[in-house]
Amino acid sequence: MPQKSWWRRTDLEYRNSRLFFAGRELNHLAHQLPTPAFVYSVDRFKANIERIHAALNGQDFKQNHQLYYAMKANRFAPLLTYLKSLDLCGVDACSPAEVELAMSCGFSAEQISFTAGSLSKNDFSRLAQIDGLIFNCDSLHSIKTWGELKPGSSIGIRINPALGTARASNEKLQYAGAQTTKFGIYREQFVAALELAESFGLKVIRIHYHTGCGYLNAELNQWQKVLQASLWFVDQCKDLQAVNIGGGLGVPHTAEDQALDLTLWANMLFQALGHLNLKIELEPGEYIAKDAGVLLLEKTLQETKRNKTFVGVNAGFNIAPEPVYYDMPFEPVALEYNDNEKIVSVIGNINEAMDVWYHDIKLPDLSEQDYLAIINCGAYSSSMASNHCMRGQFSEFLLFGDAV
Amino acid sequence: MPQKSWWRRTDLEYRNSRLFFAGRELNHLAHQLPTPAFVYSVDRFKANIERIHAALNGQDFKQNHQLYYAMKANRFAPLLTYLKSLDLCGVDACSPAEVELAMSCGFSAEQISFTAGSLSKNDFSRLAQIDGLIFNCDSLHSIKTWGELKPGSSIGIRINPALGTARASNEKLQYAGAQTTKFGIYREQFVAALELAESFGLKVIRIHYHTGCGYLNAELNQWQKVLQASLWFVDQCKDLQAVNIGGGLGVPHTAEDQALDLTLWANMLFQALGHLNLKIELEPGEYIAKDAGVLLLEKTLQETKRNKTFVGVNAGFNIAPEPVYYDMPFEPVALEYNDNEKIVSVIGNINEAMDVWYHDIKLPDLSEQDYLAIINCGAYSSSMASNHCMRGQFSEFLLFGDAV
Repeated sequence: MPQKSWWRRTDLEYRNSRLFFAGRELNHLAHQLPTPAFVYSVDRFKANIERIHAALNGQDFKQNHQLYYAMKANRFAPLLTYLKSLDLCGVDACSPAEVELAMSCGFSAEQISFTAGSLSKNDFSRLAQIDGLIFNCDSLHSIKTWGELKPGSSIGIRINPALGTARASNEKLQYAGAQTTKFGIYREQFVAALELAESFGLKVIRIHYHTGCGYLNAELNQWQKVLQASLWFVDQCKDLQAVNIGGGLGVPHTAEDQALDLTLWANMLFQALGHLNLKIELEPGEYIAKDAGVLLLEKTLQETKRNKTFVGVNAGFNIAPEPVYYDMPFEPVALEYNDNEKIVSVIGNINEAMDVWYHDIKLPDLSEQDYLAIINCGAYSSSMASNHCMRGQFSEFLLFGDAV
Repeated sequence: MPQKSWWRRTDLEYRNSRLFFAGRELNHLAHQLPTPAFVYSVDRFKANIERIHAALNGQDFKQNHQLYYAMKANRFAPLLTYLKSLDLCGVDACSPAEVELAMSCGFSAEQISFTAGSLSKNDFSRLAQIDGLIFNCDSLHSIKTWGELKPGSSIGIRINPALGTARASNEKLQYAGAQTTKFGIYREQFVAALELAESFGLKVIRIHYHTGCGYLNAELNQWQKVLQASLWFVDQCKDLQAVNIGGGLGVPHTAEDQALDLTLWANMLFQALGHLNLKIELEPGEYIAKDAGVLLLEKTLQETKRNKTFVGVNAGFNIAPEPVYYDMPFEPVALEYNDNEKIVSVIGNINEAMDVWYHDIKLPDLSEQDYLAIINCGAYSSSMASNHCMRGQFSEFLLFGDAV
């Protein structure tokens, strides 16, 4: 039995050499389903959400808070409906179509936190029709347009503290920092933003920030600085009710990654903002969804070319593009363990050089296996999928824990 | 009038300060169409194809050849149908669904060159049903499977000459080179491949290679080495009728790029392979489609944050992902020229740090303009689009030159 795999946990592990996830034997499941198939564990989604709530209801404090699931991570309608039924979170949406999908899955406007930039006239008018939507302005332009459409209403303002929290300082995941980005309103213009809001009778009841994605323990010191930097903005607002600290909480992608210590994280949050008597809102996507999803793929071939052995599968990077966009690997895993391990490269069926799931990974001998799994595919996979080369087909399934 | 823009050409230029493309005034057109809107010039597609044919029917030689348009670049059905009607090329397809779409647009199986790796059992059986399809095997596994399904048929073999031709040595565009890639059969296994084919009575009538994307003049010396390296493979085959040199011909993306000199290119090809008395086949996508497409976008905002002025548009990188995948910029262009130029960054409506169309570009003052264009969007844009953040909506239009 493999002792070393960093990703093993109670609900994702080998039993008698067969990989189980969410109580299902994945090889058996792969034979039942049309692959490529994303399978999602509802219990894992729930556990991830409850872990955040538990951390914010700490031993020494109880932080008044509200969680919004960032549906851009995974908008599979059955999942959204399950989360609505669970009643542990609202939804973070970033386009009118996302708002409408969330509502079609049962969320009320009051449970939807909307934050986006570069909204068109048409976007604004669609959003303004939805009474009760929680709306955060990302620019002076947004404050002015919203003010004209909904004078006297309550808004949030997305700020940019000019400090980032991206995983491993990855520029592509950096939403704020030394470089000026498109996101939010900087300190230099914040007073003007408040005055502009006031000129339309808009009540600024929330500040919002999101400064980077995928942060783990290694980034927590940087994250603490972001929290501190936000206090100046808080001080400028007279009607504030909430601080939305965005998302960005990450999960490990490799054996080297150290998981986010939520207790430490919650303590930092409470120390920085707990004295404010404001509601803390947060919008995690990756943290809730990523490790709750596994992609089941058919093995197509195994062939050695020169010095490399390739294992082919029946899907490419286009249905799970995050590794290619951000160099955050999704790890292939054998459905049946054996100790005859080999170094292989797992490749997809797209005619692109970058269509490699994983270079040179040690896996159990796959010669006699028909399927394999890619773990950590629950977020930013199906929701970002394309039909490149007309290879965009996949299926999705919620797994409830009641079946065996 | 702007004198310097590197991209200006007869069918894409300012007339009385208004940008015309394919005989249309784009600002007027943008007001008529639902944006984001890709507009494609059929005349430019045709001219790009005819330029390749002309180069291969050179002054000093006439190279027997066949062109297959790589439909993965842009599979808009009206475009495919137009190309079929034009009768100047077949189609290069890389998935069963692409083959079926090409056939639905009128191409016969004999006009479709199929090359792909990591094919599933289901893919093989769908493809084997299509009599006349031009099939190139990419692995020993493919030869064996095809041999079992279609013994005695004629095939091509995709080879890997272990030399690449990627634009600016971009690893993401490198399909062959020092690193072992998943593509094709290397010299070390080619004799075994031929023997395997023979064991099924398969006749190897074609070798095929595709070694990199986007190559320009700067890469031609490297390309010449690829041609030379292919001769060894040619020598091993007794039934050869054709050499398919793949695609990869690029177009300029910046003022610094030097356009591909097709006369030089064709002369190199003829010198290397002209003596073989074989048909030369080629599969360009980018060269035919990329500069035949323009993306029309609504301007959403113009706002200065700290030291940067941002111009927002109503679409993000997800509907034209090539710049983000490969660092090959798609340049924003003003629809109305004025000489009050400003440095701006053009940003999209996706909540991702990488969703920037162009950083710090000098453009005419856009304050009074409602729309702008992104040029060079005809290939690897709509065909790779995703619905990330549910911002995947766009429309597409063929422009015929008969209208003004």
